[in-house]
Amino acid sequence: MSTRTARDQPQTGPRQVRRRPGGRSARVRAAVLDATTEVLAEHGYERLSFEEVAQRAGVHKTTVYRRWASRPELVLDALHARSDLIIELPDSGRIEADLTVFLQSVADNLDSPLGRALLIATIRSSDEGAEAASVRHSFWRERFDRARVRLDRARRGGEIARDADVPLLVESLVSPIFFRALVSGEPVDDDVVQSHVRLVLSTARTTVRGGRAR
Amino acid sequence: MSTRTARDQPQTGPRQVRRRPGGRSARVRAAVLDATTEVLAEHGYERLSFEEVAQRAGVHKTTVYRRWASRPELVLDALHARSDLIIELPDSGRIEADLTVFLQSVADNLDSPLGRALLIATIRSSDEGAEAASVRHSFWRERFDRARVRLDRARRGGEIARDADVPLLVESLVSPIFFRALVSGEPVDDDVVQSHVRLVLSTARTTVRGGRAR
Repeated sequence: MSTRTARDQPQTGPRQVRRRPGGRSARVRAAVLDATTEVLAEHGYERLSFEEVAQRAGVHKTTVYRRWASRPELVLDALHARSDLIIELPDSGRIEADLTVFLQSVADNLDSPLGRALLIATIRSSDEGAEAASVRHSFWRERFDRARVRLDRARRGGEIARDADVPLLVESLVSPIFFRALVSGEPVDDDVVQSHVRLVLSTARTTVRGGRAR
Repeated sequence: MSTRTARDQPQTGPRQVRRRPGGRSARVRAAVLDATTEVLAEHGYERLSFEEVAQRAGVHKTTVYRRWASRPELVLDALHARSDLIIELPDSGRIEADLTVFLQSVADNLDSPLGRALLIATIRSSDEGAEAASVRHSFWRERFDRARVRLDRARRGGEIARDADVPLLVESLVSPIFFRALVSGEPVDDDVVQSHVRLVLSTARTTVRGGRAR
């Protein structure tokens, strides 16, 4: 899967950090990233300050500033390091059941204080630079990789149409959950998750050709 | 259409404003809302201050504070008053063509400085009160009313399945555009719009029952 390669590459990190596993630099990095996640979960993105992060990590403020150029960079780096924000996707052989677990997992993530902080932290600002855009883009791509892999398998195994447009289906599946969390504010319950899984699968089982998705 | 009734109700406004069309109160209100839209379009939501709005409207700052309790309230009220942010939806008799115009119009709105400011302004904060939630909710409901009306007509006329879940279809249609604008940052071009219209219609033409959408 070409979508998988992002996983195998080294994590995107601040340029100045020299990677010396186990060394002081690595320990400082881990302490700062843990502190960032804590502060995020407690106060949310809006009130996250480099000062407080530095204090909790037990390092000087300038150490943080020197390594992370901006709040989005620091936050994305910290969230990349959190294994508990990984989105589940089993392979039971039944595509509807698997996608339901996946989408419920997306919804649970966005509903948690940390997941919500992550979401707000990664909202595209209109003046963001190319580097920030690329970090955000690859972050979200990784989140949904497993759904793409699962749907590709379903496509090859005949569970959905062979010419199904998998990236389009994944976008159609996850978008309503983000729409509710960020825009409409309507709750995401089991029925909502189920309805969107069925809507997308109903299309996937017939055909979804309709121009490129990306 | 029950979805239409929101349009016929008086606009949601700050409670303290006494409505005296043509009177000083109404003139002040119009001046402040125009100034708010200007400041939004120029500086974006993050840098919108009550001070600058008051200055441009030619009123004292306390006049603004007295009438609008918070920035989201002021911004939503101002945006409600803007007719140029109305989303198009023709009725050519061809549902695919009509929904394509609609979705392109949603995308164009979100891509404009004012539309983007509106979007950021209306992102749900985790500590918003019931009143703000209700304002935001009804604002977005109104935006998509015409798509619901058009799909209901298509349903009755046999263009889509009679048991199609119209609110679910509308949510599925608009969500990817918001997802790209806010989350993934990927561009919205004609192909993307076309693909999502076709995906949703492909489902709508068969059946979309799958539990309640809301």
